Amino acid sequence: MTIVIESPSALFAYCEEVRRTGRKVGFVPTMGALHEGHISLVQACAQHGANVCVLSIFVNPLQFGPNEDYSRYPRTFDADLALCRAAGVDVVYAPSREDMYPEGFQTHVEVSEITKRLEGTFRPTHYRGVTTVVLKLWNAVGACVSIFGRKDYQQWRVLSRMARDLNLPVEVLGANIVREPDGLAMSSRNRYLDADARERALAIAAGLRAAHDAFAAGERDPRRLEDLTLQPVAQAFDSIDYVEAVHAESLDPLTAPAASMVLLVAAHLGSTRLIDNLELGRDPRP
Amino acid sequence: MTIVIESPSALFAYCEEVRRTGRKVGFVPTMGALHEGHISLVQACAQHGANVCVLSIFVNPLQFGPNEDYSRYPRTFDADLALCRAAGVDVVYAPSREDMYPEGFQTHVEVSEITKRLEGTFRPTHYRGVTTVVLKLWNAVGACVSIFGRKDYQQWRVLSRMARDLNLPVEVLGANIVREPDGLAMSSRNRYLDADARERALAIAAGLRAAHDAFAAGERDPRRLEDLTLQPVAQAFDSIDYVEAVHAESLDPLTAPAASMVLLVAAHLGSTRLIDNLELGRDPRP
Repeated sequence: MTIVIESPSALFAYCEEVRRTGRKVGFVPTMGALHEGHISLVQACAQHGANVCVLSIFVNPLQFGPNEDYSRYPRTFDADLALCRAAGVDVVYAPSREDMYPEGFQTHVEVSEITKRLEGTFRPTHYRGVTTVVLKLWNAVGACVSIFGRKDYQQWRVLSRMARDLNLPVEVLGANIVREPDGLAMSSRNRYLDADARERALAIAAGLRAAHDAFAAGERDPRRLEDLTLQPVAQAFDSIDYVEAVHAESLDPLTAPAASMVLLVAAHLGSTRLIDNLELGRDPRP
Repeated sequence: MTIVIESPSALFAYCEEVRRTGRKVGFVPTMGALHEGHISLVQACAQHGANVCVLSIFVNPLQFGPNEDYSRYPRTFDADLALCRAAGVDVVYAPSREDMYPEGFQTHVEVSEITKRLEGTFRPTHYRGVTTVVLKLWNAVGACVSIFGRKDYQQWRVLSRMARDLNLPVEVLGANIVREPDGLAMSSRNRYLDADARERALAIAAGLRAAHDAFAAGERDPRRLEDLTLQPVAQAFDSIDYVEAVHAESLDPLTAPAASMVLLVAAHLGSTRLIDNLELGRDPRP
């Protein structure tokens, strides 16, 4: 049975009762337009000991820039709800925009350093919107394990940092990227791609695969691993925001190999912007 | 029995157990140097239905400006603990600076509009420090009723706004100012005053008293009420940051009488800065 809750106080009361009876809440924040990647996060809740799974659906205006795709972002609530029912989600939390940002709203949270580079360079107000909405969602849920997809790798690191810095009673976990059989990372924005763009989009996974294989063969030079990733992406995509090998936790740029490195990619096909990544030596072959 | 807890996770576990057994947590955040004003906040916890009172003591570096009194702020932990014992505080939460702001800390919360004027003009980074530390403290406590002194009137309004904006499970209440028999509002900073300054400090209460009496006699003009407050303060104090009548909730400046008005004062005696206020038609005669 999947129930829909719209008010933050009703959600908090529900989750308090779960905790009061010794059970654990799992929480998956989403913007809807659900796909198998999201469903894997629901499954991860149970794998991490949650007895009850709450999934939120809210297309958060605060995290879209003025020229981004807020108005055309896919809104598929009925299909989302059906997927949640099938996946055994207990609560879909679907607050209204007015509930989230009522008249007079004026509070924001910012994580300063780890948000500055990469996505922060190209989407300067994005993470302020993400951290603010996730803090509100976490507060409405209360103590929980909260699962994020590692496709938004920087987001996952930013939110982990926020939870730690603010003493939030939230265990933040990142779940592996789910890919289509041909390697494309699942994304709500893949719906924007026509057949030609869908084909060209594979270049990111191809680049990450080349880096993965080189790493497996002993390559550790971050510049070389970047180049291997960049080559197919540069050929297939219309423009590239970044292809970078950075430190996996701090996301600092690397001048030398680090024990833990992640390759991060953001690039455009027409008006569609895709991101993907690979944590070297950890993630499976894309 | 008063216990001292130093770690946020231990505090959260303690408070969860209180809530799990159907009891309510009251929370009073302080910077120590406790006086009767703080003790009135402890009493207010019980009056508002709290079964357990948590009082935090942490001199928060983030809310002091570079030329303010962080280093000389009075630190009187043993006397504070004795006062807490006598007042029936259940838990003193005393985190270390390293626990609150460990290496790599980079997250801040800001309430934007209501913080800009008044204290915000003279202490531009102050409220960012206050909201960040109080959010951390609230997260370590969990759902509670949290009591603030209305002497820091703007602070109380800022924190109320933050709790609402962020969907925090915290009921924020303001308790009346506690005054010395001669009218001086109690403050940890009163310890800085020598006998001469202590005498001159009374000018604020005298000014607010004049405004109180004029309001009781029918005066509603915000400029006139400001002037009545200002006159004794201008004579006795070395410099004045502001004496203003503003809207009691939004703290917006007034060009005409409002249903709910507060007079706010900040002024200096030598290196000591004092604040005080009066909500007209609500607060007792200073």
